[in-house]
Amino acid sequence: MTDQMRRIALASRPSGAPVPENFRLETADVPVPGDNEVLVRVHYMSLDPYMRGRMDDAKSYAAPVPIGGTMEAGAVGEVIASNSPAFKPGDFAFGMFGWATHGVAKANLLRKVDPAQVPVTTSLGVLGMPGFTGWYGLTDIGKPKAGETLVVAAATGPVGSMVGQVGKALGLRVVGVAGGADKCKLAVETFGFDACLDHRAYGTAGELRTALAAECPKGIDIYFENVGGKVLGAVIPLMNPHGRIPICGMISWYNAGGLGAGASDQDITAPGLWRNILVKFLSVQGFIISNHFNRFPEFIAQMAPKVASGEIAYVEDIAEGLENAPAAFMAMLKGGNMGKQIVKLI
Amino acid sequence: MTDQMRRIALASRPSGAPVPENFRLETADVPVPGDNEVLVRVHYMSLDPYMRGRMDDAKSYAAPVPIGGTMEAGAVGEVIASNSPAFKPGDFAFGMFGWATHGVAKANLLRKVDPAQVPVTTSLGVLGMPGFTGWYGLTDIGKPKAGETLVVAAATGPVGSMVGQVGKALGLRVVGVAGGADKCKLAVETFGFDACLDHRAYGTAGELRTALAAECPKGIDIYFENVGGKVLGAVIPLMNPHGRIPICGMISWYNAGGLGAGASDQDITAPGLWRNILVKFLSVQGFIISNHFNRFPEFIAQMAPKVASGEIAYVEDIAEGLENAPAAFMAMLKGGNMGKQIVKLI
Repeated sequence: MTDQMRRIALASRPSGAPVPENFRLETADVPVPGDNEVLVRVHYMSLDPYMRGRMDDAKSYAAPVPIGGTMEAGAVGEVIASNSPAFKPGDFAFGMFGWATHGVAKANLLRKVDPAQVPVTTSLGVLGMPGFTGWYGLTDIGKPKAGETLVVAAATGPVGSMVGQVGKALGLRVVGVAGGADKCKLAVETFGFDACLDHRAYGTAGELRTALAAECPKGIDIYFENVGGKVLGAVIPLMNPHGRIPICGMISWYNAGGLGAGASDQDITAPGLWRNILVKFLSVQGFIISNHFNRFPEFIAQMAPKVASGEIAYVEDIAEGLENAPAAFMAMLKGGNMGKQIVKLI
Repeated sequence: MTDQMRRIALASRPSGAPVPENFRLETADVPVPGDNEVLVRVHYMSLDPYMRGRMDDAKSYAAPVPIGGTMEAGAVGEVIASNSPAFKPGDFAFGMFGWATHGVAKANLLRKVDPAQVPVTTSLGVLGMPGFTGWYGLTDIGKPKAGETLVVAAATGPVGSMVGQVGKALGLRVVGVAGGADKCKLAVETFGFDACLDHRAYGTAGELRTALAAECPKGIDIYFENVGGKVLGAVIPLMNPHGRIPICGMISWYNAGGLGAGASDQDITAPGLWRNILVKFLSVQGFIISNHFNRFPEFIAQMAPKVASGEIAYVEDIAEGLENAPAAFMAMLKGGNMGKQIVKLI
């Protein structure tokens, strides 16, 4: 009998927030690696907001997961069979194995991870795609200068916490926005933000704006956006001339029938937004980190030692068991996680 | 008795579109030039959409014209007295003399214009601020590449016609949008656009979008924006990944109680806009040309010979007499002009 693995397939497309019925736990044969391929037993898989987009069949920068297909995810685990000289059993590797206990991939699509340097979970968060997104987006698109003011949405997430820490290291005033007093405490005490505002404590974008203005007495030069909605409405009017807005996500809208439908905040009607862009010479730039992986080695070279030394902090929220991945994912989309959301599989 | 000059002052701030009562024709003493100053008898003054913004007291990138102050304008005329070695009577100079028959300015704020090279009116349009805006915005912010598709709003205006001609010279497919069949004919026949659509012929942004899509079979890589409203709503969903949107104005909104209030086109609600920016990695950048005058000598060196040779075409719409400036200005804001709007004063 062939060895069995487990995976979670997309059973149906969600309408709004995902529900348990959108996911289906399945068993399958463990795949056999072909030429130059490696078989990995996954230890930890990543849960990220972008996966919500893959559940829709709307046109986007990536193809949707097909109905019946395995949910997409980055994951890290132990090599248990290898047909590549680049990996041997016992090595740890990161790859796009999906929501699954096992995966096979071409060796050249895998990244070796050394557990002796940093915990392998860091390859999913602080030293993985989210941390890289924050580092790249802030430094390359945000173009930070010492003394400027940076506002970071989703401040305690794996992207935002990297943005904030890099910003502090570069001499910026860094103000976070997060959902909950506990997250704000974490942003200030663990990640070193100068201040953090709980957007749930403010009923409207206007009220949040007033509070934000008090924490940003010199205005806002960079807004690192990955939330949208009320936070966006609060921030835009406070932007300084020549401000920069890197955008890598809009989690507050992901469940609204697909990104782009049904946001209700009237504070940013388009004319108000464009007026701000125009009269303050704002630079607004969307990006997806997969277009910039040529910079990944530079990121790792710069940040891995700082993570190993503790200079860069990270917080992980680890759920247990593949069968609990859907619940952890649904909770994360509502902001229920504290730090980088991971699922431990073994 | 001191010599008299005439000027047009801002009598009151408009609510919506300017009306004749917002302007007041006055006489005053011709000013006497001080040290290093030059007195100019204005021959031609420029009318530009940005002046509408100066009539409001909303916070913007420039101070509003005070009530009772002379309306702002660039103008070109003959030096009639000079306390500067840089200018002598008979020279022609461009300066910010306002809506007035005479003006005094420091010599270092004036630009000498040589009528032997090109008509002095070109200093107001094709070789002045508008042409420079188009040249700079397209080349520096639009980052055009041969083979790409460029859409230009207000195609026959002094900004848009420069954008389109520079785009054609760089090997782009250039599609204009203008208000009226006569303007579209001008865009294609005089300025060499590949196609031009009359936005007035389409009731909604969606209808305009369908027509635009047919003219842009490979999508839109650069949208040169200075209109807003329906055209913006039509264009945004057609943008290609990594598209660029330089923004230097939003004339369709200038009269809506100040830029930013009351645009009615629901096609660009903010989430739809942000979704496009995000998933297509768009770069949206506001700019004002006065921040980039260090590039002006380069612009002139490159473009003045092409204007003199006729390689770069320009069209001017010349009203006669200072007293007719308000009517010409009000008509221009409604798109009534054909080409660069100028007022001849002498």
